[in-house]
Amino acid sequence: MSKYTRNKWRVKLHEIIYEADTPEGKLFDVVLLITILASILLVMLESVQSIDENFHNFLNISEWVITILFTIEYIARILTVRRPIKYIFSFYGIVDLLSTIPKYISLIVGGVHALAALRALRLLRVFRILKLARYLGASNNLMNALKASRAKISVFLFAVIIVAIILGTIMYLIEGEKNGFTNIPKSVYWCIVTLTTVGFGDITPQTPLGQFIASFVMILGYGIIAVPTGIISAEYTSQSKSGEQTNIDNNPKPVQLNSQCCVNCLEVKHHDDAEYCHKCGCQLHHD
Amino acid sequence: MSKYTRNKWRVKLHEIIYEADTPEGKLFDVVLLITILASILLVMLESVQSIDENFHNFLNISEWVITILFTIEYIARILTVRRPIKYIFSFYGIVDLLSTIPKYISLIVGGVHALAALRALRLLRVFRILKLARYLGASNNLMNALKASRAKISVFLFAVIIVAIILGTIMYLIEGEKNGFTNIPKSVYWCIVTLTTVGFGDITPQTPLGQFIASFVMILGYGIIAVPTGIISAEYTSQSKSGEQTNIDNNPKPVQLNSQCCVNCLEVKHHDDAEYCHKCGCQLHHD
Amino acid sequence: MSKYTRNKWRVKLHEIIYEADTPEGKLFDVVLLITILASILLVMLESVQSIDENFHNFLNISEWVITILFTIEYIARILTVRRPIKYIFSFYGIVDLLSTIPKYISLIVGGVHALAALRALRLLRVFRILKLARYLGASNNLMNALKASRAKISVFLFAVIIVAIILGTIMYLIEGEKNGFTNIPKSVYWCIVTLTTVGFGDITPQTPLGQFIASFVMILGYGIIAVPTGIISAEYTSQSKSGEQTNIDNNPKPVQLNSQCCVNCLEVKHHDDAEYCHKCGCQLHHD
Amino acid sequence: MSKYTRNKWRVKLHEIIYEADTPEGKLFDVVLLITILASILLVMLESVQSIDENFHNFLNISEWVITILFTIEYIARILTVRRPIKYIFSFYGIVDLLSTIPKYISLIVGGVHALAALRALRLLRVFRILKLARYLGASNNLMNALKASRAKISVFLFAVIIVAIILGTIMYLIEGEKNGFTNIPKSVYWCIVTLTTVGFGDITPQTPLGQFIASFVMILGYGIIAVPTGIISAEYTSQSKSGEQTNIDNNPKPVQLNSQCCVNCLEVKHHDDAEYCHKCGCQLHHD
Repeated sequence: MSKYTRNKWRVKLHEIIYEADTPEGKLFDVVLLITILASILLVMLESVQSIDENFHNFLNISEWVITILFTIEYIARILTVRRPIKYIFSFYGIVDLLSTIPKYISLIVGGVHALAALRALRLLRVFRILKLARYLGASNNLMNALKASRAKISVFLFAVIIVAIILGTIMYLIEGEKNGFTNIPKSVYWCIVTLTTVGFGDITPQTPLGQFIASFVMILGYGIIAVPTGIISAEYTSQSKSGEQTNIDNNPKPVQLNSQCCVNCLEVKHHDDAEYCHKCGCQLHHD
Repeated sequence: MSKYTRNKWRVKLHEIIYEADTPEGKLFDVVLLITILASILLVMLESVQSIDENFHNFLNISEWVITILFTIEYIARILTVRRPIKYIFSFYGIVDLLSTIPKYISLIVGGVHALAALRALRLLRVFRILKLARYLGASNNLMNALKASRAKISVFLFAVIIVAIILGTIMYLIEGEKNGFTNIPKSVYWCIVTLTTVGFGDITPQTPLGQFIASFVMILGYGIIAVPTGIISAEYTSQSKSGEQTNIDNNPKPVQLNSQCCVNCLEVKHHDDAEYCHKCGCQLHHD
Repeated sequence: MSKYTRNKWRVKLHEIIYEADTPEGKLFDVVLLITILASILLVMLESVQSIDENFHNFLNISEWVITILFTIEYIARILTVRRPIKYIFSFYGIVDLLSTIPKYISLIVGGVHALAALRALRLLRVFRILKLARYLGASNNLMNALKASRAKISVFLFAVIIVAIILGTIMYLIEGEKNGFTNIPKSVYWCIVTLTTVGFGDITPQTPLGQFIASFVMILGYGIIAVPTGIISAEYTSQSKSGEQTNIDNNPKPVQLNSQCCVNCLEVKHHDDAEYCHKCGCQLHHD
Repeated sequence: MSKYTRNKWRVKLHEIIYEADTPEGKLFDVVLLITILASILLVMLESVQSIDENFHNFLNISEWVITILFTIEYIARILTVRRPIKYIFSFYGIVDLLSTIPKYISLIVGGVHALAALRALRLLRVFRILKLARYLGASNNLMNALKASRAKISVFLFAVIIVAIILGTIMYLIEGEKNGFTNIPKSVYWCIVTLTTVGFGDITPQTPLGQFIASFVMILGYGIIAVPTGIISAEYTSQSKSGEQTNIDNNPKPVQLNSQCCVNCLEVKHHDDAEYCHKCGCQLHHD
């Protein structure tokens, strides 16, 4: 199949659905974003019994409208991509399918409650739209800081979990079943609740020794919250510093926010003046 | 209407009410601040049943005194401004009106409870006085740091809310109605309570799987608290650095804390030696 | 009264009690520290009913021993100072007196419970000993960072309180008395509990709208915790930087930890080689 | 005993057990890590009554398998070390013994519950394996930052505890036994729960004055959480800065992650090209 055999309208549709550089593409994204948020709101309202009883028909019809809209979008996405199989088995392809079918299944099997909640997966689709939005520029720094301190944060989290298991076992021995620490997993759960300063209060130490060790756990948790903060702070400070230096020394254009999406392999992040996909060599279409 | 046709006393009164450079202006601000705080205290005490029963008359009379004082102030503010309409429909104009009228309405309609609480809006008036105070210099840096990191904090908050919705839905499926997670909005509420490490404990997971996921939510919340802190820290550090550099390189006077307020358009933040308003050209009056 | 008319033993005793440069002075401080901590432990144990019932005599005798030791120390402090009046009405003089007399008063009036707790004031005396200890060097930086950011932290705290009052009033209107928000002060208390992410759970919103606003309060609280941290972080970073610079450029001796204490005016913080008090000119005694 | 009289297989076994440079050594570490984690999971599951009842035999047999594996490992560790006494009385030697014997003791004495929990000590053995792992490089910075700010954090913790004791005593006087503040230790416990923003809610102030002081405690706790964070942040920032400088100026190899372990004295952290132990002079064996 040559690169130029596809109809003009499929190229155009691809541009509207997958990209956000044209007015139509932007409009499509905004409409999709609103539809997703409305759909999430529907899922949430449906779970509230009193609302479901009073507005059952309205909710049902709205859900069908949204499901049909998403079905059309899903088919359009398959049609406009050159390798549909690749899209169907991509992360977003599976999310799109799973968040669309529950309503159809409910026709056959009847109201399966758990399946209905699959629709909450639609929220993940928000990230795809945002990925293309220029607004995301603000979060790049954030992501880099998190990525750079990933190893340190893992070590920290691992240490927190080990501390929680050791202290949880000690609390299980001290407080015992009569005070709510019925088993070690529950004690560890309590320990995490306390270390993270959440403190539900459903399980609380009753013995003086238990309260003393609980105080120790709390102060420890209070102290170690400083560690991830310090890591991110330092990383962030050094990031913004090196960012400034890069801006001065090299090219001042830091992030590419072009929303071009290859029709063949769905690769994004192309250069602003790229003519061909840097991954599969397929031509990119500009208006 | 020429710029010089206004009576001397109106100019003087404007200076006292809107500005804080003269001794009378400062005295007015201090008296107003005390009146506002006393009035807020009254509103709070009135809502306590036992106090309201014992000191009803005292509270009622005090409220009338304060209402009349605020009415006089409101009229004076209208009289001394050249464009009263602009003041009346400005943010502080509406706040001034809303926080004054509840007592008058209660004469006609009887004790409307909700209206009485409108008086708590008076607290917003404190910001106007503080805006003029020199003390505010300390908060400029703070505001700048917050403004500069606004975009990053929005991204962060948006991510927190998406995480809360996804995890809330999962918890709703796992725990179900019997354990207090009666619907998805309530589950999302629980998830926010847990992510922010508040942990009321009115709803708590009871199943082992629910407690496991709750532990994950808590550690996640504990970890992501580092993100806004890191952002503000880095912003603040770079702010104070650039602030120092500016001080060395340029003019060492960093903030203008002149309290001049234009009689025509109520614009503030004039230069110390400004003779005319930089917005409407109206003359500023110095003693 | 000449500077040299005082007995040798009074000078010696002054050195032991008020200073920590001689071995006897250090020993005195260590013994005093242990006595204070033991005494605090006694006060705490006495309040536990089961312990008080079983060990009443032991606790009573121990308390008398400690009271008599503190009485001797108090008299010795008066005797060895040249201006006893100044010591008696100083902060630590009053603390010493108040923490010593409750046991004597209990002889006359009988077991006054509240007075007994005055003995907890003894804890404040720990700070006097620590002030003299070389260990305190580590906390100087901390104090400076806190002092430098005092104004910013006040602005921040003031803003937190205003937010708590406004949101507390709103929650009072929404939730009302039936859901535990019985009056505005209690609502404001709930709001502070939530904003600071403490979350006792004794009062929790029950209406959907109340829970929605509570979520907002929590995320707000979660976000603003970043502000004081950012302030202290930035201050601390700049402090340690300027501290390093000072060390390089000027005298590397940063803090004077001499424990000399003037016999006349109780002034501390003398230079290591000072012969006379820099405040009253009275001679300082070296061994 | 000369340095070269030991059998070849003991040297080989030492390399496998104590080091991680050879493929066999790495495999041993991975297998040991999995065994430890499986064993901890067993201890936790055993404490859950419903699981213990249904899978008692499976849990019992698994525990015996793991106990025998650990016994073999313990004996192998003793055999391959030149000075077994030194290993037996080292920290990890004692941990190894204590985490192995509970099952044997249960044969003689019967199911002693508390002893069974000693097996949770096995978790500490994870640190030994991780010490050798190259992954630990990420935590070196963390450890250094914590060590450097140790003194400051102690001062901070000491201050927190004194504040908790003073405020706890005040709350005990205000709220009294009828509101749950039964004695001073319990009040201090409540105060730590509140200061650290954990907020269980098992004890809450009921009087208006108590709630007012509780609000103060909460805001204080909210404020002072900034202090350790600021300390760690500043330390971390300066660490990474000085780390960068060192890398530029000196040798760019920052950490030695060689896992060689001396057969004589169990010293680790040898240079990559070391031929003899830098502590006891015993020869190190390379393949």
